[in-house]
Order: sequence, then structure tokens, then C-alpha cells
Amino acid sequence: MPPAFFSGSKILIDVGFLSFLEDRLKLVDKKMMSRSAGYHHDLTAALEHLRESGGKRIRPIITLLIGSILGAADEKLISLSASIELLHTATLVHDDLIDGALLRRGNPTLNSHWTPAATVLTGDFIFAQAALLAAEIESTEAMSLFAETLSIIVNGEISQLFGRNKFSSKEDYYHRIFEKTGSLFALSAKAAALISPADRKYIKPAEEYGKEIGKAFQIVDDVLDFTGDQDRVGKPIGNDLRQGVPTLPAIYYGEKFPEDEVLGKILDGSASDSAVEELIKRINQSGVIQLAMDDARESSEKAINTLAGFPDGRDREALEKLATFIVDRDL
Amino acid sequence: MPPAFFSGSKILIDVGFLSFLEDRLKLVDKKMMSRSAGYHHDLTAALEHLRESGGKRIRPIITLLIGSILGAADEKLISLSASIELLHTATLVHDDLIDGALLRRGNPTLNSHWTPAATVLTGDFIFAQAALLAAEIESTEAMSLFAETLSIIVNGEISQLFGRNKFSSKEDYYHRIFEKTGSLFALSAKAAALISPADRKYIKPAEEYGKEIGKAFQIVDDVLDFTGDQDRVGKPIGNDLRQGVPTLPAIYYGEKFPEDEVLGKILDGSASDSAVEELIKRINQSGVIQLAMDDARESSEKAINTLAGFPDGRDREALEKLATFIVDRDL
Repeated sequence: MPPAFFSGSKILIDVGFLSFLEDRLKLVDKKMMSRSAGYHHDLTAALEHLRESGGKRIRPIITLLIGSILGAADEKLISLSASIELLHTATLVHDDLIDGALLRRGNPTLNSHWTPAATVLTGDFIFAQAALLAAEIESTEAMSLFAETLSIIVNGEISQLFGRNKFSSKEDYYHRIFEKTGSLFALSAKAAALISPADRKYIKPAEEYGKEIGKAFQIVDDVLDFTGDQDRVGKPIGNDLRQGVPTLPAIYYGEKFPEDEVLGKILDGSASDSAVEELIKRINQSGVIQLAMDDARESSEKAINTLAGFPDGRDREALEKLATFIVDRDL
Repeated sequence: MPPAFFSGSKILIDVGFLSFLEDRLKLVDKKMMSRSAGYHHDLTAALEHLRESGGKRIRPIITLLIGSILGAADEKLISLSASIELLHTATLVHDDLIDGALLRRGNPTLNSHWTPAATVLTGDFIFAQAALLAAEIESTEAMSLFAETLSIIVNGEISQLFGRNKFSSKEDYYHRIFEKTGSLFALSAKAAALISPADRKYIKPAEEYGKEIGKAFQIVDDVLDFTGDQDRVGKPIGNDLRQGVPTLPAIYYGEKFPEDEVLGKILDGSASDSAVEELIKRINQSGVIQLAMDDARESSEKAINTLAGFPDGRDREALEKLATFIVDRDL
């Protein structure tokens, strides 16, 4: 059984080296709902639903740990964490709509009465709640960073939307996963350093830690899309590829076996289902998974190295272990 | 011919009492694009398109005038104005999608290649640009107000989405138009006072001015939906009613003629096209237009009265004339 930490449905941290964060993570969770009282019940219910179903809380963990090392006030770190987690949630809500529209799978509703219109508005409402919490921190620098990160994420989504079904280079891929994932991890770490009373020399390495751990996290996510247990991952293996989005294993495979025409056929939509299944097997057996995992491990090590100048202690140790844990996870 | 100010396609202020704002409004316009460089060309092109096709710029006018009376720095007022105008634009972009989805008129695309997915993302991108400019003002109080206003607007849209085709009371209507329009006018005025160096006693009356002028503006908009020239307004007369949204003239009509069953039939979708046309004529001839206009004039006068304690001069005079002008417009 995987640790509850990565079960995708609990915020509880069962991995031992993070358990000391449990109380603060509960406060983050509470904070996410704190400003939504008094609005339409469907909006607050949707927000509650999303909070409950809510993810690994890995970004808040990074914010809390970096901020804690650098002496930032718990109250501000909790607002910042909640704000970033809501920003992440809002982009996911709109993402669902975008993927749904693109794949014509019908309305990707969170519950049966959610139309696309309600989904757009719920996402907007969550953006507003995220901005409200960001304003609580009283740092216009953090606020600005917050808005820039949203621009980067949206820019990445637009680029991906218009660039689907094109073969990507490794460089394209890394750029894309920075926009999609790394930017928000970088925000989680950098903003925590920004709002701390510590020397500003920590801001840049904090940002680098976030970028690298975000990169490792997304590579592993993309690897698990090929190697994971379909029942546990909750979607068919090779899902990205089926949707015309080549991730790192497929890119490495394309470079190693340029004569295999199935990859091109998948991207232009002319491959049969069975041909796709066969290609996924070939990708799994070709050694490219290992190449991708080597990249993830490299980023994880880089992340750990950026912490070299940070004060020693439990928090820094947890950030180091987190970087390793993220690569070794199987879900 | 209407003044270009209300043509809906120019920012130019042709009405004499506002012409002195022209240079500053051009700077607002420029500011709206200032942070979008470097992003995907479709995003910047969409933003440019929206800026060009851009509306009356009435909110920036209010911000510039209130801020100017109270001694706020031009630079901050321009960022604030641009930020609020972008927030408004973003909500309109998502609104189009929502109305399109609801009415099943197909994709309300700004140009032929805009899918709903691209529309959602463009709106999100514009939210991000609005937040970036809001952060430039370096007032966390204004930032917070900004996010609260977005919450109010979205809350109003969700309430309207789930409450369509229900008969509203006058109170419901006023609450709805505050959420939809008044809140953003109130933000335009209140935030300008907030960031000014003047006494905080001006904040509340500034907010009231915004609320009342916003109320008058929306009532007149809703009246013009019944009385306007279809070709100039650009949509069929009685458009709101056809969409199942009762506005003030229809509400007054329903109160005055409870025995007329067509209104109820329109709201439950069982009225024929010709019955709708006939009802629109009856509403126009029933005297309720005058009742609605009386309400608009009352709000306009209230707006003017809230300025009583403000320093005299050209800016205050322009705000007073604006309140009257808004009610007397015919487009």
C-alpha cells in the first residue's frame, strides 16, 4: 500500500519524516475555506468538495518547510500555502473543462449538475479566493510573483492546446513542464523565502529548489503514466500519448527509434488502438523509462544541492528527503 | 450620432467635459498591454483585440477623477484603472462563454479559431494581467478589495445562472445589478480613494458614488434593451427577457399587470416568438420605462450628493456631469 501521503485523497502525512507538519497542514486546509462564507452555496460546496478530494499538498509542504527554516511567521506561511493550493486548484478546475472540451468526452462535471458555465465560474471564484489569501500576506512582491506564475501556467496551457499532436524535443518538454508544474513549485518555495525575515540571498536557491523538485515530480508523473498500475492511477496507461501529448519517455523513444512510425501516427491520429497498446509496451521495454528516471534523479539531486547554504535541522532534512521520496514514489 | 465616448468601439472621449482625460486614458490603454509581452502570440493578440474593441472606459474615468481630486499619484491611478478594466474584460470573456454555453448558440468565439478552451484560458490570462497591474499599486488593501470584487461578480453570475427563468423582485434585481455592475464601479471609485494620500473619510462616499452611478448605469442599460435602436445596440430588442432574465422594466410590468400571463410563459420557455414581440411592445407602452428611468435618475442624484464633501473643481464637476450624462445617454 502506498503511504497515505500519496493516496491523492488525504492530506494526512503518513511518511514519517513529514508527520510533524500535520497540524499546520490542517490549518492550511481550514484556511482554504476561510474566505468563502456568504457566497452562493454551490460555490462554497464546490470549493469544499475540491478541498476534500484534494491532492498531496506537496506545495504547502514545501512552503511551510522553506519558510520555517528562514523564520517566516506561521500565520503568513499558512495563508501563502492556502493561496497557492487554491491557485493550483483553480487551474485544475479550468483544465478539466479544457481537456473535456478538447476530447469531447462531454462535460467533465464534478457532480451531475455542473455545466461548463458553472465550472468556469467555480474556477474564477477559486482564483478570487486565492487572491484574497495572497493579499492577506501583505507582500506586494509575493502578490506580483503569484500573478506572474498564473500567467506562466496559462501560457503553457495555451501553448499546449495549440501545439498538441506535434512532436516535441526534450527542450520543449522541459519548458512545458516548467510552465505546467515547475513554476508553481518554484512559487511555493520562492514566495516562502520572500516573506521571511531572512537574508534575501536565500530567495534564489529556494526558487531553484522548487523548480528542480517540480521538474523531478512531473517527470516521475509522466513515467508513471507508462509504468503505473492502471487501477491505482485511475486512468489508462499511456493516457498522455493517447491524447497526443508526447512526454519524456515517448520523446526519448522517438529519438532512439526514429524508424518506428507508430509514434508519428499516434500524433496525427491515424494509429489504431492496438498499435498504440503495442507501442506503449515497446516504450516500457526499450530502456527509455530508465533514461527519464535518470533525469528525474538528477533534478532531485540538484534540488538537494541548492539547500547547501541553508541552516541545518529538521526542516532542511525533510526538504532533502522529500526530493528523494518524490522520485521513488510509485503513485 | 452618439458621442464617440459611448460608441463602444473607441476610448476617445468626445463629450466636452471629459476631454481633459484623453491623455491619461491613452496611458491606461497602453498600460493594459504592458505586461503581456513574451507570452503566446494568441494570448497577446486576444488581449490586444479586446483592448481595441474596448468599451466606454467609464470605470477608468471614475478612478482617474476620484483619485485626481484626492491627490493620488497619476502613475498609480493609471495602473489601477488598467487593472480594473482588465478585470472587467476577463469577466466579459468568461461571460461570453457562459452565455454561449447556456443558449447553445455554439461557440461564442472572438475569432474563428477560438474554442471554449482557448476562451477560458484567455480569460484566465487577462485575470493574471489584471492582478499583475494591481500588484504594481503596492497597496494590499486595494489588492484585497480587488479580489473581493471578483468574488462578488462571480457569485452574482453563479446566482444568475442557477436562478434564470425565475421571476425576480425589485430587491433581487438591485442586488443582482450591484453584483454584476455596481461592485466594479464601487471598486473603481473606492480603490482610487484608498490609494490616495487624502483623509480616509473620503473612502466611504467614494464607494457610494461608484455604487450609485453603477446602479444608474445598469438600469439605463436594461431600459435601452427595451427602447434602444436594434441596429445601434447590436442585439435584438428585449434580449434579456428572451434569455429568461427579467430586468427592471419587466419587473415593474409584472407588478403592474399581474394578470398578463405572457411574462410567466417567457420565463418558463413556453411563449411563442410573436407573443414575446407583443409583450415587449406592451412593456414599452405601459409607462414602466418611465418608472425605471426615475429610479436611474434617483441613483444618479444620490451619486452626485455623495460628492458634497469633496474638494471643488474641474474633476468633481466632471464626476457630477458624468452621473447625469449616464442617465441621459441613448446607447
